[in-house]
Amino acid sequence: VSGRADGETGERGETRAAIIAIGSEMLGPLRLDTNSQWLSARLEEVGIPVVHKSIVGDDLEAIAEELSHASRRGNLIVTTGGLGPTADDVTVAAVARWLGVEVMRNEEFLARMRARFERRGFRMPTTNEKQADFLVGAHVLENPRGTAPGFWVRRDDVELVILPGVPSEMREILELSVLPRLKERSSGIVARRRVLRIAGMGESAVEERVAPVYEKWKEHPVTILASPGEVQLHLCVRAEPSRAEETVARMEQDFAQALAGRVFGRDGEDLSATVGRLLRDSGRTLALAESCTGGMISSLLTDTPGSSAYFRGAVVSYANSVKEEMLGLSRRTLEEHGAVSQEAARQMAEGARARFDTDLAAAVTGIAGPDGGTPEKPVGTVWFALSERDREVVAKRRSFIGDRGMVRRAASLYALELLRRHLEGSLA
Amino acid sequence: VSGRADGETGERGETRAAIIAIGSEMLGPLRLDTNSQWLSARLEEVGIPVVHKSIVGDDLEAIAEELSHASRRGNLIVTTGGLGPTADDVTVAAVARWLGVEVMRNEEFLARMRARFERRGFRMPTTNEKQADFLVGAHVLENPRGTAPGFWVRRDDVELVILPGVPSEMREILELSVLPRLKERSSGIVARRRVLRIAGMGESAVEERVAPVYEKWKEHPVTILASPGEVQLHLCVRAEPSRAEETVARMEQDFAQALAGRVFGRDGEDLSATVGRLLRDSGRTLALAESCTGGMISSLLTDTPGSSAYFRGAVVSYANSVKEEMLGLSRRTLEEHGAVSQEAARQMAEGARARFDTDLAAAVTGIAGPDGGTPEKPVGTVWFALSERDREVVAKRRSFIGDRGMVRRAASLYALELLRRHLEGSLA
Repeated sequence: VSGRADGETGERGETRAAIIAIGSEMLGPLRLDTNSQWLSARLEEVGIPVVHKSIVGDDLEAIAEELSHASRRGNLIVTTGGLGPTADDVTVAAVARWLGVEVMRNEEFLARMRARFERRGFRMPTTNEKQADFLVGAHVLENPRGTAPGFWVRRDDVELVILPGVPSEMREILELSVLPRLKERSSGIVARRRVLRIAGMGESAVEERVAPVYEKWKEHPVTILASPGEVQLHLCVRAEPSRAEETVARMEQDFAQALAGRVFGRDGEDLSATVGRLLRDSGRTLALAESCTGGMISSLLTDTPGSSAYFRGAVVSYANSVKEEMLGLSRRTLEEHGAVSQEAARQMAEGARARFDTDLAAAVTGIAGPDGGTPEKPVGTVWFALSERDREVVAKRRSFIGDRGMVRRAASLYALELLRRHLEGSLA
Repeated sequence: VSGRADGETGERGETRAAIIAIGSEMLGPLRLDTNSQWLSARLEEVGIPVVHKSIVGDDLEAIAEELSHASRRGNLIVTTGGLGPTADDVTVAAVARWLGVEVMRNEEFLARMRARFERRGFRMPTTNEKQADFLVGAHVLENPRGTAPGFWVRRDDVELVILPGVPSEMREILELSVLPRLKERSSGIVARRRVLRIAGMGESAVEERVAPVYEKWKEHPVTILASPGEVQLHLCVRAEPSRAEETVARMEQDFAQALAGRVFGRDGEDLSATVGRLLRDSGRTLALAESCTGGMISSLLTDTPGSSAYFRGAVVSYANSVKEEMLGLSRRTLEEHGAVSQEAARQMAEGARARFDTDLAAAVTGIAGPDGGTPEKPVGTVWFALSERDREVVAKRRSFIGDRGMVRRAASLYALELLRRHLEGSLA
């Protein structure tokens, strides 16, 4: 991993955010706070770095202390959670204490809450009344999706944005009432990200190819993230909006060029959708023969809506007899070379193409582990083959590292990447 | 959701933990801190509540300030991250500053590090040397999986456990060197959790069945979590170890009884492993015919190591012609009833059992969406069939809600649940 530390960009005078997630359940093992990560992304887009994140329980004193601590780290504090109607929701009371202000029941809001319950045929429970207790002097942030409003309030040079913890409510209030204001008075510096996605190459191979481009763009942070079967390059440019857009586009071009056709997609584009688009555009149909991947490639391909237009089906040939009977793999190949061999992969691909009567077929056979490895064919050994009408069969062997799940996933993505490169005409 | 607030249990004199995740990348939008959640679970098991969690960047001053803050909230601070070899890893230096102690290079450890690199044929980069800088006076926690060791050190009445951020390394050190010591001197109150897992039933149906049991055990927190195709009941008992074990076992029994055979597994047991065990124990083999699930059931089944002992294979029959040619579905059935029908599911299951020559076969055919729905067969309609040698075919229809991914996942888990109940002899 390379790249500038995201949290270290704040200079005095700039806005620096601290996020506090409030809720005792997030201190236990069952609930993960995901609001903070989403908030980080949105704040970054308007040029505000997050310098501190924390989780505290629903406790008056703990929340007040956390506000003091957070206000020493940042000058914009965003809290989520603790605005509900039950006794353990104490965020408003804690903020009031920290600010040294009162809360006051807003009768007009209370009447509207009651009316809303009545329209749905319910009587409003008394406990909900406290959601009409507003912080005196605070700007109220309307909540179109729920009962509890948010608040925006200032103490000295620290601003405090108080949001509910329900993700959909929190997101809507932030996008509707918070981000536009932050954007308006932002220094004009925003962050633009682009994710370049690569399959079928290891992290170090990607790093080696892009090293000169890293150097050229070293003032902008680039992060490499690797998962089984996929490597992602995250580019990030902080500048005024049009310059940020333009710079990230030029960076993308340079990185993509260094990777010579190996970028399968950007941002949210996934590999199975890319393969699907190439198949559809070229009017070709596909079948699969899956052994060690056990149906995972088919499952990935059919995740994409409309895949029935090009994907006819697959044989998951887990038993060797199935490879013989349903894919036409010869007994002799099995005996001479074994089920995990170039010859077996080739025959499986040809067999699948013939049985399903498709333009194209791919086959995968390998050893996912944990058992079944031998010195010549250790766990992680996988053979791939591609068969296309009137063309030579292409076969590749790869060795994947990791546990059963990692080998299966890496092999599945590698098969899709082979298909992608074949369809783009770039497969050697 | 019910349950006592997890973070509010600490009394003076008891151990209360604060967790600090160190790493600037976790302040940005790309990385989520998941170590803290795992740590919460392990600490809870030895009776230590977590009262505060935070994330700070790789910054000397920020880390030292966070240690001061955390030491006011808890008396056991666990940090993760910032022990790597690069310039931005400053956790050891920050802790040394906060403790007011020196760091000292451990030459013996350094020699061992060098030797390890050399055994793998590399020269150790100079940057790695700093990983041999140990905190003076700290107990060193060996890291069997990586270079950086952890540390355990005390300042006044606060204990500090410093761990690497790489999850596998962090976990191993905690389990090997930290938990046993914490357990030894714990107050005697521990938490025991049990997760009961249910498939093929909705959240409200589960809640309805267990309502009387909830009431009986209301002093212990029970949480319901739902995801597509699965509902989990999380039971939790805090007491001294043997009483906690015994109580959670009695709760489990009561809840399982109320659910009358619908609990497919507990804790980490998954449905495909349970089905696999039942198949293996009864010596039966299985084949699948998958349409709308597109290979997902096969993929789930073959996630389990050793699945080749009972799973022979599958036909993913995405195109109707494949259903005819490879599964023997009749043209007449397709024309009269359509591919999504009881008749089609039955013929597909029988066809798969015959083609793969297995004891048992399951078939799934449905409309995952977003397109393809009709008023009679809306998106989410799925037919299931089970065929077993010398027995009547069983067929079921279900309507799932949600997007394409949710329908596919729920249908896959439902098919596995049908198999489980059939194998246990409890399918009506």
